[in-house]
Amino acid sequence: MDSEERLRVWEERADPYLLVASLLYLAAYAVQVLVPGLSPGWHTFWLTVTVVTWSVFVVEYLARLILCDDRRHFVRTRWLDLVVTVLPLLRPLRIVEVHERVQRRRARPRLNLEARVMAYTGLTVVLLGFAASLAVLHDERYAPGANIHTFGEALWWAASTLTTTGYGDATPVTVRGRLVAVGVMFLGVALVGAVVGSFSSWLLRRFRLEGEREE
Amino acid sequence: MDSEERLRVWEERADPYLLVASLLYLAAYAVQVLVPGLSPGWHTFWLTVTVVTWSVFVVEYLARLILCDDRRHFVRTRWLDLVVTVLPLLRPLRIVEVHERVQRRRARPRLNLEARVMAYTGLTVVLLGFAASLAVLHDERYAPGANIHTFGEALWWAASTLTTTGYGDATPVTVRGRLVAVGVMFLGVALVGAVVGSFSSWLLRRFRLEGEREE
Amino acid sequence: MDSEERLRVWEERADPYLLVASLLYLAAYAVQVLVPGLSPGWHTFWLTVTVVTWSVFVVEYLARLILCDDRRHFVRTRWLDLVVTVLPLLRPLRIVEVHERVQRRRARPRLNLEARVMAYTGLTVVLLGFAASLAVLHDERYAPGANIHTFGEALWWAASTLTTTGYGDATPVTVRGRLVAVGVMFLGVALVGAVVGSFSSWLLRRFRLEGEREE
Amino acid sequence: MDSEERLRVWEERADPYLLVASLLYLAAYAVQVLVPGLSPGWHTFWLTVTVVTWSVFVVEYLARLILCDDRRHFVRTRWLDLVVTVLPLLRPLRIVEVHERVQRRRARPRLNLEARVMAYTGLTVVLLGFAASLAVLHDERYAPGANIHTFGEALWWAASTLTTTGYGDATPVTVRGRLVAVGVMFLGVALVGAVVGSFSSWLLRRFRLEGEREE
Repeated sequence: MDSEERLRVWEERADPYLLVASLLYLAAYAVQVLVPGLSPGWHTFWLTVTVVTWSVFVVEYLARLILCDDRRHFVRTRWLDLVVTVLPLLRPLRIVEVHERVQRRRARPRLNLEARVMAYTGLTVVLLGFAASLAVLHDERYAPGANIHTFGEALWWAASTLTTTGYGDATPVTVRGRLVAVGVMFLGVALVGAVVGSFSSWLLRRFRLEGEREE
Repeated sequence: MDSEERLRVWEERADPYLLVASLLYLAAYAVQVLVPGLSPGWHTFWLTVTVVTWSVFVVEYLARLILCDDRRHFVRTRWLDLVVTVLPLLRPLRIVEVHERVQRRRARPRLNLEARVMAYTGLTVVLLGFAASLAVLHDERYAPGANIHTFGEALWWAASTLTTTGYGDATPVTVRGRLVAVGVMFLGVALVGAVVGSFSSWLLRRFRLEGEREE
Repeated sequence: MDSEERLRVWEERADPYLLVASLLYLAAYAVQVLVPGLSPGWHTFWLTVTVVTWSVFVVEYLARLILCDDRRHFVRTRWLDLVVTVLPLLRPLRIVEVHERVQRRRARPRLNLEARVMAYTGLTVVLLGFAASLAVLHDERYAPGANIHTFGEALWWAASTLTTTGYGDATPVTVRGRLVAVGVMFLGVALVGAVVGSFSSWLLRRFRLEGEREE
Repeated sequence: MDSEERLRVWEERADPYLLVASLLYLAAYAVQVLVPGLSPGWHTFWLTVTVVTWSVFVVEYLARLILCDDRRHFVRTRWLDLVVTVLPLLRPLRIVEVHERVQRRRARPRLNLEARVMAYTGLTVVLLGFAASLAVLHDERYAPGANIHTFGEALWWAASTLTTTGYGDATPVTVRGRLVAVGVMFLGVALVGAVVGSFSSWLLRRFRLEGEREE
């Protein structure tokens, strides 16, 4: 189709800009959460970066929505794009994919299947863990009865949640913090499970190859 | 067989009514647990809904048991039907299946295999988590030494149990609450495991396809 | 081989007796742990049952060791038999297998592959959880600072450990209790993982079959 | 290639010495952590062992780096060698592989695929758990507010972390202890997951074989 083709061309062109905007958004959010004593000037600067990058995401999504013919089909098949437009902290779910598409065009030597799945999901886990730590720290820091006060504690909570260890020495107590935590638990269990599954499958394949080589 | 055929026709006809009854039962139970200051009139109303829908489940099960020839075979192959008749809060284990059978007759476009498993088990997890939160809240709310007092805390407990995170900041202390929890743990570990497994398998397949397309 | 054949015949004959002895041992251990105020007569009785059944295990193992020609091969291939002879509480790892072998000779209708794996590992998990609860209760009950005082708490601990939820509201504090717990964690993670894996695989197969039937 | 060949010969020769050095390093580290009241003489001795073995690792890595032609390719494909050279406590990730290579040349009877994966990852888990317990004990022992004071508690923490149970009764509180813990969580989840996956796969295969034999 013509419209479908136009959409693909657009997405290929937009990819590098979206990748940069995603990293900028995450950086701006990180600075605002991690540096509380920000001077008014810098505060305005980083707030502007947040707002501008977010606007870029929204505008780009709407532009694509308008560009295409079958809008219901667009919304249904690219529902993840809608989710990461409304909640930009979930962008890591797309960053990696976009980054991969950019890399691909440069025709670098590729990793094997399992290594690629592990790299993709592993990187997504790291970025989501980082974003979730920021969000939870933002919500919990000054909450009464909270036990997550520093970024270190937030990262510690994120690691113990993503791996479903759940020590319980650092847990969110606010409603918004817990909503983030529930998301991290379910996303974490799925993504970490995918890493583990790929690792097992790679390990089994490697041992099988080794066994065959010997005979 | 004639009797087997009659049973199938009955089940196809009964499906939509059972689906409605299941949702009504869950709604009635939810209202009774979540709105403690119910006026006597409404209390009677919702209690009636609970009793009537439950009776529907029991009558329908007995009707099928009488309809069929080989009763021992019926009980053994449809043991899940017996379980959800005795414990209607476990109905979500059947709701989704029934809903799918209803959908199928309308010949909607179907999802791929892994997406269907993920949707089926994911929805079951959500509904079971909701039902378990209600049951645990009902048992724990006024128990001495309990730490689950609100529906929010009950949902938080359910999420951290279903993903086997187990922070330990919200745990049942009553015998009935713990029985529910043990059920949630084992059902959760199996259902969440199935979601994770399907997700891994889908991810691997998608990456493999992408790799092949490129070559 | 002749000796190998003789061994097989012996094992087939010994199976039912070992099954009964295993259940007796577990029952005797359970009574001794769960009924602390036992009269001297009953105490002696159950202690005798424990000692006699254990002796049966040891004698049977030694008999087989003597019966066979290649003893090193016997010890190496049947190392699980040695483990459950030294630690009879781990017998559930063998009970189910023995029970299955007994059932098989009666030529009952068989379940499909995944259902059999799930039934086997599921039953093993339940029996091991029961045995571990008894062992932990025995060690922890009167330990200073312990939080497992009743059989209910021990079962609650076993469930939250087997599923790797690990709330932390009931944890062993004695060295022996923790050794049991470490065993439960690793055995549990493997056995529960096997149940989950089989369940996923069965679910995927069922959905695939359903999809094919429709087309 | 000639250089690639020379590298392989080198590695085959170096293997047994590296294996001994790895065990020596772990032993020296263990003594220094577990025997705090060491006399000055012994302290110097074990410190020397640590330094010497570490130097061996570094020198061996650099020697191989110099030996080979394509250095960037060497660094990229053998990144694990770099990791275990910088952090020798992670050597267990290589010990087992090396040990296997040594065994192989002796042409012992081999285990089947799943048993080999389970043995490899299981042994790695045990050695890493041991090394991590030492590292965490070293960091936590005298830290204010810590709850890991003895080696037993450190092992208990390692077991509950590796299996992602996470009771929370023993958790690191120092920054370095938590960094070790995060590593253990992610490595543990992957390695234990591989053991579980292999075990499931072996169980399914065994049940399938049994089913076929009967028919």
